[in-house]
Formats: sequence, structure tokens, C-alpha cells
Amino acid sequence: MSTKDLPFSQGEFDRRIAKTRAAMAEAGLDCIFVTDPSNQAWLTAYDGWSFYVHQGVILGLDGPPVWWGRYMDMIGGRRTCWMSDDHILGYGDHYVQSIERHPMQDLAAHLRDRGFAKARIGVEMENYYYSAKAHAVLSDELPDATLVDATALVNWQRLIKSDEEIAFIRKAARISEKVIQTAIDRAEVGLRKNDLVADIYHAGITGVDDIWGDYPAIAPLTPSGIDATAAHLTWNGDPMRPNEATFFELSGVYRRYHAPLCRTVYLGTPPDDMRRAEEAQIEGIDAGLNAARAGNRTCDIARAFMDVLAKHGIKREGRMGYPIGLSYPPDWGERTASIRLEDTTVLEPGMVFHFMPALWMDSWGLETTETILITEDGPAQALADMPRKLFVKD
Amino acid sequence: MSTKDLPFSQGEFDRRIAKTRAAMAEAGLDCIFVTDPSNQAWLTAYDGWSFYVHQGVILGLDGPPVWWGRYMDMIGGRRTCWMSDDHILGYGDHYVQSIERHPMQDLAAHLRDRGFAKARIGVEMENYYYSAKAHAVLSDELPDATLVDATALVNWQRLIKSDEEIAFIRKAARISEKVIQTAIDRAEVGLRKNDLVADIYHAGITGVDDIWGDYPAIAPLTPSGIDATAAHLTWNGDPMRPNEATFFELSGVYRRYHAPLCRTVYLGTPPDDMRRAEEAQIEGIDAGLNAARAGNRTCDIARAFMDVLAKHGIKREGRMGYPIGLSYPPDWGERTASIRLEDTTVLEPGMVFHFMPALWMDSWGLETTETILITEDGPAQALADMPRKLFVKD
Repeated sequence: MSTKDLPFSQGEFDRRIAKTRAAMAEAGLDCIFVTDPSNQAWLTAYDGWSFYVHQGVILGLDGPPVWWGRYMDMIGGRRTCWMSDDHILGYGDHYVQSIERHPMQDLAAHLRDRGFAKARIGVEMENYYYSAKAHAVLSDELPDATLVDATALVNWQRLIKSDEEIAFIRKAARISEKVIQTAIDRAEVGLRKNDLVADIYHAGITGVDDIWGDYPAIAPLTPSGIDATAAHLTWNGDPMRPNEATFFELSGVYRRYHAPLCRTVYLGTPPDDMRRAEEAQIEGIDAGLNAARAGNRTCDIARAFMDVLAKHGIKREGRMGYPIGLSYPPDWGERTASIRLEDTTVLEPGMVFHFMPALWMDSWGLETTETILITEDGPAQALADMPRKLFVKD
Repeated sequence: MSTKDLPFSQGEFDRRIAKTRAAMAEAGLDCIFVTDPSNQAWLTAYDGWSFYVHQGVILGLDGPPVWWGRYMDMIGGRRTCWMSDDHILGYGDHYVQSIERHPMQDLAAHLRDRGFAKARIGVEMENYYYSAKAHAVLSDELPDATLVDATALVNWQRLIKSDEEIAFIRKAARISEKVIQTAIDRAEVGLRKNDLVADIYHAGITGVDDIWGDYPAIAPLTPSGIDATAAHLTWNGDPMRPNEATFFELSGVYRRYHAPLCRTVYLGTPPDDMRRAEEAQIEGIDAGLNAARAGNRTCDIARAFMDVLAKHGIKREGRMGYPIGLSYPPDWGERTASIRLEDTTVLEPGMVFHFMPALWMDSWGLETTETILITEDGPAQALADMPRKLFVKD
């Protein structure tokens, strides 16, 4: 196609940039260099699997943002970003994985050219795509600038979703329903796990009607039995066995927007302790959704769930959710607020979380989760329509 | 399953560690902290989609390595690593994405406990999973230690593959043949690209016979027409159009080992300039394979290809290949040697490269690539069996 197919209106991008600039002003920053691929896409619409080389967005206090990356990805930037071509910059391939040169030398030259040699520049110190080396080189190249840690500055602006974004997440939820239903329908004793995962990918990427499926930021997690006590194991070619629970941690994705959804399938007759945990978990999720109201805090959701668990005599530690939306590998969380006892983020309408009160016990794991939208009033809305229970197949 | 299913023999892990320690000794290091997930898996067999939180391997000059990560992933470490449980450490969930605490504080305590408080410790400064912030915190926590840049120290040890590894890559190549054949067979005018990608994923993950498919470190790249002039665009829901070339940059994966393979499909009658480029590219690949002999250098492969291109009057810049094998997202390259004019790595038997002399032109892209094994004598061996040509479907 020869014209751009932008995911959002210009008004939406303008709103995002204005919001980000307000946060920059508050932090006393002249400029930010954004390396998080999700933040890059959120600001500019850049979309490509090129984050494995150095790239990012330069955003000053006026004018359009500038996307900067490898020369061959500049071409992709021209295809996908909303800005005009003169705001999309490429560096030569001799910088790529060179031991003599570093792409940050090229970036520093652009920053100097744009008057940021002595500026206060925000960088995302805690990001997969801003390496320790990148920071060291950029610091050396800009001796008169002040590099300030602006980790999550843009991420926090993403916390409340616009109507356009919520529409995308709702579409992703349609795909999530389909992939979870596929997993439940297909699971049976003797089926190789990789064959099941193949069907999960197929269901997710074909999508639902004109809602075409994008790649998830996390590979399908589908561990069974004792492997399900560990949270992040991926599949192998072993057949599914009787008398084991398998949890499915999956997400449909529409144009990089996620709506994670987890359910657990038991092949056989579940043990009593798993049934009791199921009961507690589902009652706890109801309590959590009811506490997930505008004006309450993230910790209130966690407390509501934990209180129910305590009543049932079940111990659980750790985080039980995080905001989601636009994402690139390796994580679909937004890495700002957390649903946990110590987090006091105030809930506002338009926030979307993966509420994830999974139970990983000594010999099995039970995941039943929801992508939830904080509404104007009343409890949070689960965006996927899927029965909330342990699915049992005899 | 209750017993460990290790991918390799203990002798293989011992060999890897001895080789790594020799490089550490040469660099004057007492210890390395390894964050690259591929390096972690290569040393310990750790396997899980958990690299989005801080984790790594501590390797001193004696004793088994220690895997360190989030508490819930410690469970996964016990399921997958070859070491005994006392060499697998977990930190509490309150360190995860906290703004008050950082996991590197926990790591530093372990390093001090193990006598590395004043040691020379190698860290991977240029790695996706060693952030600028991680380095700053670790430096602060270990004021008497010397943190030395050991980027790619382990990666370089991976360059020559063992027979066990080559057997895995050959299995991956069987899957690569299947996924490329699927793409070629399915491509047709009107087919939505996401539906094609769904079939590609399905083919790759079902695998071939008992060679079950693992997830690729890079999502399928399948751009068409003008989008194929940009190297790293992913799919959308648009139908395939007549008179466009689509390149397929794909890899089968067996237990994290890759064998990338690319082919291009044209729907219609290709223009003359594409046909001329095809001829040059194929002749150039032959020349490259012939130059890819033990004792020659990486630049000799690049030069052989470029000479053929020059003869045909085609200009091309940039890298045309890299070593491959074990990999995790976001990249399947090993990030050491490159097939390019300025790289002088001497080729040795057992090295495996993705030889990738793609042609990205002004209005189309043409990718025909091979995973190649450097042999004892003679030209390199292409590990996948797939005709080397532009596939034309009228």
C-alpha cells in the first residue's frame, strides 16, 4: 500500500504529546530520548520488529517528535510514523553491532544539532532497549548535557486510555476469547503441547472477522502439572497427561493492543484443594472487581482479593496485576502501577489492568484472570466474556 | 514431568563453562554476571519467558554457575537448569518494578556473600537485559568491586557449535523448510496477510515429526510490495495484491536453536529489474558459499558476494549475515562476527551463519538467504534444502 495506515487520529497523537510535554515540563526536562518501543509507537505510530538495534524518539518542547533508528528501519519509519519524512532519521549500518562505533555517537550528533548539547535530557534508564553501554556512550558524547532518569515518564501518560485505545483493547479481547476457547476446546490427554500452542497462535493471528491478530508481546504460556508451579515456562513436545491442570496465559492482540486472559483446564477430576482454591479465587476476583472503582486505589483491589483468600485459609504473595495496552516484547505490562498491597495509585476511569490473581501452589498452578476497565462509576468491567471457573475435562 | 529434560549432555555444559572460564582468565575477571538470556541458557540450560525481569547467571572461576532471578522464576530454574537447587536463587516480588527497591541490590548481596565484594566482575554492558539503571545500582552497591565491560565474552564462546548443537540446528532447518514451503504454497492474491502468518506459525510450532517447534526469537517478517523496501515491518490484515513481491524472513526453532531461511514470492510476472537482481543474488550466494571456507574470513564471503553484484551493476550496502544458534527475543543473531567487508573473523569448522544478502531496493525487496555451516574443507553447507530462486505464482 502506498498511503499510510495510521492506527489513530492526529488529535490522539497531539493529545499524547501535549500530555507528555506537561510531564517533561514538570520534571524540568528540555528533551526526552524515548527507547521503550511501546512509548515510541504511542508517540509516533512507529511499528516494526527493529527494537533489537538502537532506536528511539527525540521529543523536545515544541515541534513534531523525531524518530531515529537504523537506516533500513528509517524506511519503515516513513511507512508507519505520522510525521513527515524529515522527522525520521537513519544511521548507517556500520554502527550496527560494531565494536568500534556506537549508534549513540550518531544520536548525540543529532541532539547537538538540535540545540540540546547543554540541555537536560530525559532518558529511560530502566528499559530493555537502553543498555548500560548506550548510556555510557551518550554521557561521554554529551559532556555538557545533563542526562536525567526519566524511566516511565511516558509510560505513566499511557495509564488512562482514550476511547480510541479502549476500542482497540475491546477488539483484542474478542481475540482473547477466541484463543482461550480454542485452548479449552482442544486440550485433551495425549495431545502434544506444541500442537495445542500451534492452534492457539493460529486462532490469535487469524483473529475475529476483520479484527486481524497481531503478535503477542509474550509467547503463549501453557504449563501443566508441576511445571505450572513455575510461572513462565513455555511448551515442549510432551503429550498432555491425565490428572494435571494446565494454565493458559494468553492475549489477543489488535494493532499492538493487548487484552490478556487466563484460564485453567484440568484433565480428569481435580483434587479437593484445587477446587477449594478455585472457589476462593473466583470469590476473590469478584471482590477485586467490586473494589476496582474510580477513586479507590490499586491496593484496595489487592486487599479485597487477599481478604477473601485469607478467609479461605490460602497464603499468597506477590503482585496481582498491572496496567496493559500497547506493547512490544518482552512484556505486555506497562511497568507503572501494580495491583499490590503497597501500591497506592488512585484509579480513574479509562485505566485498563490485567487483574491477575494467579495461585501458584506447591504442586500445581491455577490462573483465572481478567482484563478490566475502570469505569465512571460502579465496579470494573471485565472486557472479555468468558466463564470464570476451572474448566474440567474428564 | 517430574525429572529434568536437559537439552544437552553434562559434558557439553562442562565444555562451555571451561571455555568461558578461559576467556574470563584472559580478561582478568574473577567473576561474570551474565544477563543475555541466550548466554544464560547456553551455560545453565535455564529456559523460560522471564527475561522481562532482572535475572542472570553468576559464574566464578570454580564451582557450578549460579542462576539468579525472581522468586517465582527460581521455581522454573529448578525445573530447567542442570545445577542443583542450591545453585538457583530467587529474589522477592517486592523488588519487581518497584520505584523504591531494585533487584540489583539483592544480586549485590549475593555477590558480596560469595567473596566478590572487591572482585573484577564482568558485566554485559551492551545487552537488552542489562539496563543503564541496573548498572548504576550494581555499581553503587559494590563500591569496592571493579565492573568491567564483558559484552559478548560468552557470545564469542558460542561461535563454534558442538556436534550436539549442530544436530539441533539441523532439526530447526527441517522446520524452516516446512514453514517456507507453507508460505510459498499458501501465498495468493486476496489472501489476508495475517491468515498467511497464522499458517506460518502453525507450521513452525507443530514442527516435523518428533521435532516439535519452539517460538522464534523474531516474529515472522512477511512484507509485500513497497513495504518490503523496509526490512522489519510485520503483517496486517490487508489482502495480498497482484504484481507484488513478498519476502518471507522466517526460522524454524528446535529447543531455542534457529535456522533462519528467507525466500521471496512474486504474485504475477516479475519486472525485468527484479529478474536481473534475482540472477545476481543467486550467483552471488553461490560465490559466497564458495568463499565460506575454513581459513577464509567473514569479509571474504561479503567480498565474493559484492563482486558478483558489482559485475551486475547493483549497489548494496550493509551487513549480509551473522552467526546464529541459540536465541531468545528480540534477536536471533549472536551479535559477534558479521559477514561484512570490515569484519575479519577467521572461519572455522562448526561455525553457523545466517548468510543474508538481501536486496532492499527503491520499490521492492528480494530476500533469498541460507543458514550455512562452515565445514572441515570445501564450501559451506546450506542446512536447509530449498530451491534458491524467486518463486513466481501467476
